[in-house]
This record gives sequence, structure tokens and C-alpha cells, in this order.
Amino acid sequence: MKKITVLILLLSFSAYSQTDDKEQIREIYTASLTNGMAYDWLNYLSNQIGGRLSGSVQAEQAVDYTKKQLDSLGLDRVWLQPVMVPKWVRGTPEFAYLETAPGVTNNLPISALGGSVATPLGGLKANIVEVKGIDELQQLGRDKIEGKIVFYNRPMDAALINTFQAYSGCVDQRYSGAEEAAKYGAVGIIVRSMTLRLDDYPHTGSMSYGDTALDKRIPAAAISTNGAEFLSTTLQLNPEIKFYFKQNCKQLDEVRSYNVLGEIRGTTYPDEVIVVGGHLDSWDLGDGSHDDGAGCVQSMEVLRLLKSTGYRPKRTIRVVLFMNEENGLRGATKYAETVKYQGENHVFALESDAGGFTPRGFSFDCSDANFQRILSWKPLFEPYQVHSFVKGGSGADIGPLKNGNIVLSGLRPDSQRYFDHHHAENDTFEHVNKRELELGAAAMTSLVYLIDKYGVLAQGRVTE
Amino acid sequence: MKKITVLILLLSFSAYSQTDDKEQIREIYTASLTNGMAYDWLNYLSNQIGGRLSGSVQAEQAVDYTKKQLDSLGLDRVWLQPVMVPKWVRGTPEFAYLETAPGVTNNLPISALGGSVATPLGGLKANIVEVKGIDELQQLGRDKIEGKIVFYNRPMDAALINTFQAYSGCVDQRYSGAEEAAKYGAVGIIVRSMTLRLDDYPHTGSMSYGDTALDKRIPAAAISTNGAEFLSTTLQLNPEIKFYFKQNCKQLDEVRSYNVLGEIRGTTYPDEVIVVGGHLDSWDLGDGSHDDGAGCVQSMEVLRLLKSTGYRPKRTIRVVLFMNEENGLRGATKYAETVKYQGENHVFALESDAGGFTPRGFSFDCSDANFQRILSWKPLFEPYQVHSFVKGGSGADIGPLKNGNIVLSGLRPDSQRYFDHHHAENDTFEHVNKRELELGAAAMTSLVYLIDKYGVLAQGRVTE
Repeated sequence: MKKITVLILLLSFSAYSQTDDKEQIREIYTASLTNGMAYDWLNYLSNQIGGRLSGSVQAEQAVDYTKKQLDSLGLDRVWLQPVMVPKWVRGTPEFAYLETAPGVTNNLPISALGGSVATPLGGLKANIVEVKGIDELQQLGRDKIEGKIVFYNRPMDAALINTFQAYSGCVDQRYSGAEEAAKYGAVGIIVRSMTLRLDDYPHTGSMSYGDTALDKRIPAAAISTNGAEFLSTTLQLNPEIKFYFKQNCKQLDEVRSYNVLGEIRGTTYPDEVIVVGGHLDSWDLGDGSHDDGAGCVQSMEVLRLLKSTGYRPKRTIRVVLFMNEENGLRGATKYAETVKYQGENHVFALESDAGGFTPRGFSFDCSDANFQRILSWKPLFEPYQVHSFVKGGSGADIGPLKNGNIVLSGLRPDSQRYFDHHHAENDTFEHVNKRELELGAAAMTSLVYLIDKYGVLAQGRVTE
Repeated sequence: MKKITVLILLLSFSAYSQTDDKEQIREIYTASLTNGMAYDWLNYLSNQIGGRLSGSVQAEQAVDYTKKQLDSLGLDRVWLQPVMVPKWVRGTPEFAYLETAPGVTNNLPISALGGSVATPLGGLKANIVEVKGIDELQQLGRDKIEGKIVFYNRPMDAALINTFQAYSGCVDQRYSGAEEAAKYGAVGIIVRSMTLRLDDYPHTGSMSYGDTALDKRIPAAAISTNGAEFLSTTLQLNPEIKFYFKQNCKQLDEVRSYNVLGEIRGTTYPDEVIVVGGHLDSWDLGDGSHDDGAGCVQSMEVLRLLKSTGYRPKRTIRVVLFMNEENGLRGATKYAETVKYQGENHVFALESDAGGFTPRGFSFDCSDANFQRILSWKPLFEPYQVHSFVKGGSGADIGPLKNGNIVLSGLRPDSQRYFDHHHAENDTFEHVNKRELELGAAAMTSLVYLIDKYGVLAQGRVTE
């Protein structure tokens, strides 16, 4: 009899709890979609501040603004974590043309890659050799490359459904293209922009010279996809054409910047920390609305929504707006170092850094046992069509937190439009849809709520 | 022994067949994403032709253009089906202002609802009474309504996840608002635009006067959501403000137009017809890219993709571009009548009329047995994230084909952005993403391929 009573009690508790979760999540969504703050915050970040390259005035304004906004939420603690960041500046905008015959030129839209050196003061003019990838350099050999500009022109694969996969299959050209081409005596490189559209926007992004000696570093720029098509066609008609470009970028001394943090202290397990975040810096060409203004305001909104719906978390919920994801990852590194040094126990970290588009689900980097546990919550996410839960990478900023126990997760929005805007002049506020942004914030809040309520398994046992 | 052999044969056949389907669908997606025609066709429809209101020159140009494009595909038959359509014209653009004091005015963006009568030549100026819905009219009574303009201001419910549901909860104001208000002596109506955004675009759409006598019909217009907010606030401050509007629309005589059809004749069951379609007409404010240029070019693309991937359908696959969905449904009615008259056997019809956004799945209006059968194909759609299969309505144009046997289906794209553009000036080509459009075409083609290959259950038995 006693056994039956306990069973009934357990059953009714479980049923109650599920209804409870359903209602709490419904409340979170309603609050986000009808009284959200994410869109207004993003409007300010994008239209009043703009592109926020590490070390820029705008990056510092973004630190001030987001800290003030967090201050206004009545959190238990809001603070700045100082971190030294690289300061690379673009200088006067780049300029490029193709010379098909002496005096016959066509301007082409280019943009220096982040971290690139400048061209000589008068610019750089040379013949071009087109390749589809780094591995072609060896086949061509020094003879065919020396003194020329290498033009990397392997496009993203449009047949792939997930555009991030298509990006991964190309980005080596941008990241390592200059380092590799320099080994064969190239004088500069031009990289086809990492986008699936044919348009006139060059898409910048980080690059590395690896161990290349300072005096052997060659300038590197992205060219728009239309520009790349034009260049490639013209080159086939006349391999002797020359390409001229001039860029004025410079690596300055490191400067002090900040991660922006805020937290609600947990009522029951304050020492267990749940992190939610995005990165506050962005490239300088657009205003960084999708990459990653969206992730920042969504992360801030998670704490605001928990508070506004009256939920008192058991664990400490912390928002971290990381500085310098784009060209150094210094904020993420500093944060993880501090966590380790202070012996903080992070049980869960969630990152939003894939654009403010309709969320489709989450990726999880965790043990099978934790993944099974999370999968059991899928029915709660189905009414919101955000129930694609997959195992996979989480995000660059929370990556350094990885250890045997922590559950890492990334919001997975629809990826189709992301690279239309990524690192380009058209990553701007008007391309973010309010509802899509808010649905992402609500999905993140719902997941954080469940993790907070039910805990995660650590070393085989649940922390709850 | 014999039994085992048969089993093995069956198993290997089934395994082969599944791989076959997987490969065929992969091929369809690759063809759509790398060599698609849908986007180019839509570019022409939108940017060379533009808004295609029934009876307009543009609607006729669209008939010519799409027929020519179908002609070029090498189908077995391409033809036009004549149909008489209503011809409503907007005339000189509408004009409206709010008069807060004599001579103190604010212009407001309005647009006549489709089918509305004009205002008197000099316009119409009257006091306003704001309501949140038709049911408030009775409470207010004739005393408070007579001689005034009724302002319907119930917004779409932002808390709903599916925006079509939010639209359904509001559209009675636009469709029946004038008919109902006229019963209480109102002189005109203004309806808050059916969109979730706050912006400056009035969104038009069809309305009906029901049985209202010709001389009792009152003019009806949509006002932008920002305009509605302004009007509502101003009205609270001063209930005596007057609203002026002038519109010059007119219902002309019916004119002849056409449905555009093309088909690939089935090899094995040519008498079983599979229809795929969208509607060629659109409202006149934008260029009708999402509503429903997208659905038209996707439907044309289904036949092209089947041909280009070398698939020879067993059944007859027919594309129908319906005329006059927006304000009459004459094309759909005519098509269904002809099908009935000719005793054609339609086994499946698929409509795309919910915008060219990332497809999330399909709705099905069919027997449980057929739905179960279709559900078994879900794994084939999962790699493309278009596996949300639900029971539900299909589409206005294929609705009239409904009988006991036919399976009706609607493409279900992500709905978040649809009503940002619906029936408004900003339903334009640049708001359609090429890949999202192409993913829809590929999903539709994949479904048509499976239906063609495996048939549907009719009266309890499979036609296959």
C-alpha cells in the first residue's frame, strides 16, 4: 500500500512538474514575443554604436552600453573583466582594380582581411595566378607563383544544406592562404568572399601569418563574389592582366578592453554556474547585428526573461559578453583562465553566435548520459519548432570552458541567410527580424530554465 | 527455402529502393541549389513584370511569360485555360489625413482594400470610433456609429508561434468589417494592417460586402500599423478628431484571363494526375514575390527538376499556375470544374502559397491511412530539415479539388517573416532569399517524386 502511495505521489509530482515546465516555457515565449528587450538593445548596439572591432571606440561604447543595460535589470552582480586585446585598424578604405591593358582598368570591391599587413604605400601591382585551394600551390611551384598575386577562388559548396559546413570547406583559403602563398614567393593574395550569394560585398574575416617572419608577410584581401567571377573570367581571356590593390591597415599595440558580465545568484546551488553568452566585438564593415550583436542581446534577454517571469534560479545564471572573438579570442581565453584559477564550478554554457535567425534547435557537446537527459525535454520544445537537438560543437567563446563535466551548447538558427551577411557591409540591423531574434532568446531561456531546474549529470551523478 | 528467398529478395529490393530514393532526392536538391531556375524566373516576374492583379496588363504579361518558360522545358503539353476574372483597379493612389484641429493635419499611409468602393469624389471626412473587433459594434449600437468611420484595431497576436494563426484571428476585420459596420450606419472603415511589425506599409487584401445593397456600400482601407498606433493614441487624447480619406478604386467589368498549365505525361498511369501549383496573380502594391511568385516558380521548377534529373514519372505531373486567387478564386474554381467535367482522376495536389522562406515541412489533408504512409517517408526529408509533417489545410487553389480520395498538401515554410511583406509594398524580390526559395522547390519535387513512385491509397487500396 505504501509503495502504491509513493508511486502515485511520484506520478502526480511528475505530471505536475511537466505541466509546470510547459507553462513556464509558454510564459517565457509570450514575454519574449510581446515585451522583449532584445530588439531594442540590438537597435542601439547596431544603429547608435555600429561595428565594434576589438580596441575600437565602438567596442568600448558597447562595453559601457551593455553594462548599463545589465545594471538596469536588477541582477545580483554586474561587472567588467579586463582583458588585453589586439588592435588592428583598417585605415583608409582599400582600393583595387584590374588592368586589362595599360590604362584600361576596372575597379573591384575588396576588403583587407583582419590581421593583414598593408600594401606598400603606392599599392601593389602584379600578375595573378588563380587557384582553387592551397594544395594547388605545390603543384604550381615557385616558378609560377613568385612575384605574383595568388587568387584563391574555391567557392562555398551550394549543394550542402548547412551553410556552416560549406564555410568550413573554404575558410582555410582565407585563414592560411597568405602564409602558404608567401612560401612560394607570392607578393599578395586575394580571396573569394565566403558567401553563397553572388554580390558586390567583400566579406572580411581573420587570417594568420603563422610563423612567417615579419618582413615576409604579404597583404591579403577578400574580393566580392561578383568581383571574383569577373576576375576569373577575365583571367581566362588574358592571363597577363594585372591586379592592383592598396590597403592601409595596421596592427597597433594591444589595448585594454573588457568582457561584460552579469549574474543572478542561485538560491540553492549558488556555486554551480550556468553561463550564457555571445561576443560583443564584431568586424568593422557592417554593424555586426547578426555577428554577434544578436547573440549578445539574446543572452542578456535570458536573464531578463527569467526575472520578468518571476523564476528564481537554483543555480547561478551568468551572462558573459565576450570581447575579441573575431580576431584573438582573448576574452574567452581570459574568462576560462579566471574560472579555472578561481575554481568555479561551471555546469552548463550556452552560446549564440550563428545569427539572429529563426532558431531550429541546439547542438550539444556533452556526455551521452547528459545528451539522453536533454533529449527527454524535446517534447517541450516541439510546439516552438526548436527541437532539432544534435551532438556537435558549441561555440568559440565557450569552447575553452570544456572539461570532463560541463555541458556545452550552441543555439542553432536556420543557416541559409547567415553567410549573405557574415563579416560584410550588409551585416546590419534591418536584416534581423524581430520575431526570429526573440524566438531565439526564448528558446535559450527555456533551455537554461530546464538545466537550472533539473541540473546536469557530473561524473555519472546528477548534481541535483 | 522458397519463403526465405522471397524474403531476402524483398529485403534487398526494399534496401535498394530506399538508397535509390535517398540518391534521387539528393540529386534533386543538388540540381535545385546549384543549377536552379526558380530564382531567375522570379526575378523576371517581379522586376520585369511586377504586381499582377487579376485583369491587369501585368497579369497577362505573367501568363505569357510563364507559358513561354514552360514551353522551353520540353514538357509533353503546355496550355492556357481561359477564365473570366473580376477586374478591380486602384486608380490614383489613396490619400488620408487626421485632423486634430481645423487646419492641423497629419498624413497617414492607407491603401484601399481589394474590392472596396471609392470614397465620394471630394473624399470623406468624419469622426472615428475605434473598436477591437466586429462584436463591439453591437455593444456600441447605431447611436455611436452612425455617420462615423469605424476603425478596426485588433492587432495580430504576437505570442502565437505560427503567424498564420495570428492572421486568422484578425482577418475578419478586413474581410467583413465594412459589411458589418454599414449595418450600423458607418460611412467608412479603416482596418489596422495585418502584420506583426510596426511599420509604415499599409497591407491590402480582399474584402466582401456580402449582400449589402450597392448604394449602402462604404469605402474600406487598410492603415499601416504605425498609423494605427498613432491614430489610436490621438483618439484617446481627443475623441473628436476627424479622419479624412480619399480613394479612387473601381470595379470594372470582368475580363478574360488564364490559368497556365504544363505537364509531363505519366509512363505507366498517365490517367492519374499529380498537380503542383501556386497562384500567378498578386496584389498590386508590391511585386508579389512571396505572394505568390515564389509558389509559381517553385511549382514550375518541380517539373524542370524531375526532367533535369532524368526521372520519368509513372503518373502525369501537372503544374497549374492559378489566376485570381487573391480576389475571386476564379482560376481554382474553373480548374476544379474542368477536372470534374472531364472526369480526370487527380490523386495528389500540392500548393505553395505561404512565401518563399526556408521550408519546414508539409501539411496534409488526407485519410489517416495515407498520412501514415507519408509519415514513413519522413527519414528521407530529415537531412534537409523539412520533416515537419502535420495534418492540416493545404491551400486555397487546390481546395476545390477535394474529394474522398485525393491527397492535398501544402508546403509549410517558416512563417515568421511572411506577414512583414504580405499584400504590401515591400513584398518584393530582394526579400526572397535564393537558397530558401530553392530549398522549397527541392522539397516539393522530392515529395512529388515519392508520391509518383509509390502512389496513394484510394478507397482503401493503393493505386500502385
